[in-house]
Amino acid sequence: MKTAATFLTFILTLITLNGLAQYNVNNVQLPVMRDNQRTNIRIPHIDGFVTLKGDLHMHTVFSDGKVWPAIRVQEAWEEGLDVIAITDHLEYLPHKKYLTADHNASYELALAEAKKFNLLLVKGCEITRHMPPGHFNALFIKNANLLDQKKAEKVMDESHRQGGLLIWNHPGWQSQQPDTTKMFNIHRQLIKEGKLHGMEVANEEEWYPIVLQWCLDHQLAVMANSDIHEVTAHFYDFDNHHRFMTLLFAKERSLEGVKEAIKAARTVAWFGHQLAGPEVYLDKLFKASVTIGQPYRADDRKTEYFELTNHSDFRFDFVNKTPKNGAPEQFTLLPNSSIILKVKKGTKSFPCTLTNVHTGMHKNLQVQLR
Amino acid sequence: MKTAATFLTFILTLITLNGLAQYNVNNVQLPVMRDNQRTNIRIPHIDGFVTLKGDLHMHTVFSDGKVWPAIRVQEAWEEGLDVIAITDHLEYLPHKKYLTADHNASYELALAEAKKFNLLLVKGCEITRHMPPGHFNALFIKNANLLDQKKAEKVMDESHRQGGLLIWNHPGWQSQQPDTTKMFNIHRQLIKEGKLHGMEVANEEEWYPIVLQWCLDHQLAVMANSDIHEVTAHFYDFDNHHRFMTLLFAKERSLEGVKEAIKAARTVAWFGHQLAGPEVYLDKLFKASVTIGQPYRADDRKTEYFELTNHSDFRFDFVNKTPKNGAPEQFTLLPNSSIILKVKKGTKSFPCTLTNVHTGMHKNLQVQLR
Amino acid sequence: MKTAATFLTFILTLITLNGLAQYNVNNVQLPVMRDNQRTNIRIPHIDGFVTLKGDLHMHTVFSDGKVWPAIRVQEAWEEGLDVIAITDHLEYLPHKKYLTADHNASYELALAEAKKFNLLLVKGCEITRHMPPGHFNALFIKNANLLDQKKAEKVMDESHRQGGLLIWNHPGWQSQQPDTTKMFNIHRQLIKEGKLHGMEVANEEEWYPIVLQWCLDHQLAVMANSDIHEVTAHFYDFDNHHRFMTLLFAKERSLEGVKEAIKAARTVAWFGHQLAGPEVYLDKLFKASVTIGQPYRADDRKTEYFELTNHSDFRFDFVNKTPKNGAPEQFTLLPNSSIILKVKKGTKSFPCTLTNVHTGMHKNLQVQLR
Amino acid sequence: MKTAATFLTFILTLITLNGLAQYNVNNVQLPVMRDNQRTNIRIPHIDGFVTLKGDLHMHTVFSDGKVWPAIRVQEAWEEGLDVIAITDHLEYLPHKKYLTADHNASYELALAEAKKFNLLLVKGCEITRHMPPGHFNALFIKNANLLDQKKAEKVMDESHRQGGLLIWNHPGWQSQQPDTTKMFNIHRQLIKEGKLHGMEVANEEEWYPIVLQWCLDHQLAVMANSDIHEVTAHFYDFDNHHRFMTLLFAKERSLEGVKEAIKAARTVAWFGHQLAGPEVYLDKLFKASVTIGQPYRADDRKTEYFELTNHSDFRFDFVNKTPKNGAPEQFTLLPNSSIILKVKKGTKSFPCTLTNVHTGMHKNLQVQLR
Repeated sequence: MKTAATFLTFILTLITLNGLAQYNVNNVQLPVMRDNQRTNIRIPHIDGFVTLKGDLHMHTVFSDGKVWPAIRVQEAWEEGLDVIAITDHLEYLPHKKYLTADHNASYELALAEAKKFNLLLVKGCEITRHMPPGHFNALFIKNANLLDQKKAEKVMDESHRQGGLLIWNHPGWQSQQPDTTKMFNIHRQLIKEGKLHGMEVANEEEWYPIVLQWCLDHQLAVMANSDIHEVTAHFYDFDNHHRFMTLLFAKERSLEGVKEAIKAARTVAWFGHQLAGPEVYLDKLFKASVTIGQPYRADDRKTEYFELTNHSDFRFDFVNKTPKNGAPEQFTLLPNSSIILKVKKGTKSFPCTLTNVHTGMHKNLQVQLR
Repeated sequence: MKTAATFLTFILTLITLNGLAQYNVNNVQLPVMRDNQRTNIRIPHIDGFVTLKGDLHMHTVFSDGKVWPAIRVQEAWEEGLDVIAITDHLEYLPHKKYLTADHNASYELALAEAKKFNLLLVKGCEITRHMPPGHFNALFIKNANLLDQKKAEKVMDESHRQGGLLIWNHPGWQSQQPDTTKMFNIHRQLIKEGKLHGMEVANEEEWYPIVLQWCLDHQLAVMANSDIHEVTAHFYDFDNHHRFMTLLFAKERSLEGVKEAIKAARTVAWFGHQLAGPEVYLDKLFKASVTIGQPYRADDRKTEYFELTNHSDFRFDFVNKTPKNGAPEQFTLLPNSSIILKVKKGTKSFPCTLTNVHTGMHKNLQVQLR
Repeated sequence: MKTAATFLTFILTLITLNGLAQYNVNNVQLPVMRDNQRTNIRIPHIDGFVTLKGDLHMHTVFSDGKVWPAIRVQEAWEEGLDVIAITDHLEYLPHKKYLTADHNASYELALAEAKKFNLLLVKGCEITRHMPPGHFNALFIKNANLLDQKKAEKVMDESHRQGGLLIWNHPGWQSQQPDTTKMFNIHRQLIKEGKLHGMEVANEEEWYPIVLQWCLDHQLAVMANSDIHEVTAHFYDFDNHHRFMTLLFAKERSLEGVKEAIKAARTVAWFGHQLAGPEVYLDKLFKASVTIGQPYRADDRKTEYFELTNHSDFRFDFVNKTPKNGAPEQFTLLPNSSIILKVKKGTKSFPCTLTNVHTGMHKNLQVQLR
Repeated sequence: MKTAATFLTFILTLITLNGLAQYNVNNVQLPVMRDNQRTNIRIPHIDGFVTLKGDLHMHTVFSDGKVWPAIRVQEAWEEGLDVIAITDHLEYLPHKKYLTADHNASYELALAEAKKFNLLLVKGCEITRHMPPGHFNALFIKNANLLDQKKAEKVMDESHRQGGLLIWNHPGWQSQQPDTTKMFNIHRQLIKEGKLHGMEVANEEEWYPIVLQWCLDHQLAVMANSDIHEVTAHFYDFDNHHRFMTLLFAKERSLEGVKEAIKAARTVAWFGHQLAGPEVYLDKLFKASVTIGQPYRADDRKTEYFELTNHSDFRFDFVNKTPKNGAPEQFTLLPNSSIILKVKKGTKSFPCTLTNVHTGMHKNLQVQLR
């Protein structure tokens, strides 16, 4: 908005005199600014739910992050998110020497900004322990200060008491689990008691296929979160990738809607052109994203063509399981794009595997084309 | 499609040996290719019509263009068009020394390619005369060779006889009309006789506001065409602009649909972030493109916020006609983006002018926000 | 660096099994990260000096900025700077409620990071007063806490006592000088006493031609600084512009070299494709940046061609003062690019004005081509 | 050049009237055009030679290409090349039905354009046979028509008679050599007789490590050529890659200089971020491209830092052969960029392998850092 106005101002201050631009000598606005608009992410709503885009794990200067809470809100709005949680560490506070704030401060500062941007802000914090149990986000809590206790179990109980939901963060983080990603007794116990509501199948720049399987097996919400400490635009290669995000299939666009979707495990993780989650939602996302055109003929009698059109911002990587039909063995459908496939005349529907759509640890979404 | 496959091949040929990539020594495919997919243009369908994207004026090596006809089809498909016409000059043939082809050759060569890409191809040619009458495209003709006659009137009659539609090209082209853009008797005569069906209000990189007015006054189809001779990607700054195009509101996606839409003057010109055409269509395009969010409050009791969301690939430049309401005097809504406007509490609907949406020579679309 | 390694890891975790990518189920690194390398700015060294790129005005969370000091260093390094100053406000501290730090904290935190990146860090702070005197940066001070005094004169004296240099910031900032940009008695007094060493002719997104004239008249250092509060990548449109910066012609790449160059007024301001400063340096920068090729003939006997090559990251906008020679009336030479000019045969050297190179309030650099 | 002028025109036609932009109603130029300047490629000159950038294999509509010869010249100039050869097939002429031209026509048409752009144009053609012998370019010939003979040997003799140089094109092209890339007797014979002057180690999108070895073993010129048939900007992903090119170390920038460099095998192939050729030139290119900064200390007494700066447009992929020194095992230095390496204090020079710089079929350039 500012850039456009600036540009006009710039033009209006230009008067040509003898073929030479002549400026207002007091103050000339130059059109050097970025236009900070929100880029809408195109993901279909499915199944009567609204598909919310969330990132429920991030840090600010109030723990070990590098930015003020307001930046997190502005980033999220511009990058198309609907809901975020600021989850500063309770225990790891390297900037403490310079800060007087309590554990609720980053939420409060972010809230003022979130209200302006109509962004949903979940109150949260990160419980930061050695493995086991590792790191957890407590989301939808009321007072983070009360969670600042010594014993991890006590912290989790307090979160639960406040109505909080617990998410197990980056179970495969190599600093804590260098070789294998595994579940400990405490995790099994939390699941059994209904105290664990989700796990990160993807975090920052990495993903953990085995964690996807655990979520599916126990009907917990899958999540992909940025866990961003820096500036998102400094961390992610935004020319080719979006930030990691959790898609939530909510009854409404509200904090209540987000909470209910997590509890019902109606989520899908989207990260690095990969999608991971329950087959039922991934199948619906694919079908709502891609349309298959009518077959047509062009150059000879033996070949038919048809167009695949992707209306979404997802990418889909196909492996053709019956390559004798003449279609390529592998092909990709980019976001908001179409490709044309050439098949032998008479080819009926044929099966493909989507290698970047994960419905299990060793399982990918199967789709039928045509 | 090729890139993705190439990429896989590239990966598969890599085997690490002592920390060093080891290649297949015979042939290594490198992932250096562009992914030639079609980028879908997001423009709403309105009023029960399908909105087709067309460019009905372009050249090939068969007149003074620099590319083979197949390139025109591939460009058009990748750039999201539905329909094109190749309109090589009948009279200006600088490559004649090297070519044996007749006036139908470029259409025939393009047709083979258009069939593969499911692109609608209008048969056309350009009648290329000094002003008056200037240059005209004859579209939907059957045999261009029969139009190769001396007298311009005869050529137009022959086009008419074949069921062709006549479009007056670039009436404001400075090589022919250096000072003012004006209509001559022959143009008035053609309109009177129902033989002229449209005019280019924009061509290549320029536009002619007065021609918009003529089209509106005489209910002729407005057109924006590229008139491309080079490679479109060499001519247009595709990072910031699309090629000039004519939007056609057609009963169906077919050549018949295109022809009927032109005859009914159901078109809009889209060029350089500008839209020009009949108010009725522009108003509907705006309303189908932009949604206005519910007002909400954030930081104080005197201010309200609301979000404007643009679901289309159009850009909209607003001038706020009642700036006392607190919203900026000027603001821009980029393609596929949202902005938040801040107004004084209690502001009802307020009027804006869209400075880049032209409903007449001196007239812009007026819209009400909220 | 990280991306490249990540990419290799990504490849190595891929093993194809039945035409399907199979991942390590514990942890897969995805190539989603930006490659955070330093982009070198190409600006020639002139006159036996090393041309340092500086930005000597910026904020952190320790005053009203939005980022931790380390971010300022990382941004500066990646964006090609040699020297920065963090200049948090002494008086305006909106985050004070959350912070315990003193006025030296942001420097100290930045210093640890600057050492890693081999970046020169000037100790500074911003004196923040109503106009007159307005805002000033005190650079090269030793202890910012001692400058936290009530009277502006006392603060400036303390800066002087510590060996600090005073820069008058954004004299044309409209919040302080809405109509005209003017000097007050206190500024004249400071100049007279040798206590003022430079002025910002450009700040953030705007520039003040009259301030350029003041600097030239009084032999003070011209400066262009970002005064960045947000993230630079969020503020500047980096696809088309660099951040505002001050070019310093220093005897050596050291803090001492920077200080001596400012005191000697050997600086040029570079902002929004504009250059402003003493003619002597601008002339040398142009001549060291642009080479003019030998004339050659191509298509006829009346025309000659020659190539202009720009080896720098500057842009140059030319106005041809003798357009009868056949060259265009206006033309632009982009960074690291060449253009070919066509002139009438026998054209000797001809004069051009560089409309974006300012050697005075109403004066532009004149150059001779060929 | 045109864009800049257009932009000014655009501004000048804007007059604001009641807050609304008002246009010249006759003709408004819009700033939608690309700025077609030449982007200079930054590659050092070495060893007293001038490093010329060449692409000596490409097609036009006069054989099976899709563009007029002038496009090849414009592409090459904009993409920074010094020398090209248009090498239309003698035997494969799918457009023959539409064309009357002889085998010299594409050269003649390109020459007129090359003269304007000061581009060196080598006269050439492609001899197009089944394997063996496969495809060959005859470069520096005088009359392509005389090469249009039945027997391949005769064609090669005629090329030789005209002073032409023979290059073996894409020896590993899978359509001719599906499994292995191999030399036949005729190739050995040509080498023995001194009639073969070079081979393509890279073509279009692929490369043949074994062919690099053959060139090195027989002291023939290595080449990387685009063999482009389409538009280069449609084929190559120019956001991430340059077109394939042959670097020639010539005594002067002239056709004679190019010819002598090929005969002396002073060439290097540059393709898809890979470099391949004689070690002596690659080593000099690396040393002239990369500077290594002085070591410095930052945060502790055990670590030292130093900066690697790449002044060229090459990319370098390093593998650290002594990772115990603390530097990363793998790292990349991007074009025109710097990185900082952190090593254990006291680390002397350490060896790295450049995995993308090929000095043999199974050999990579070894460099010492610090």
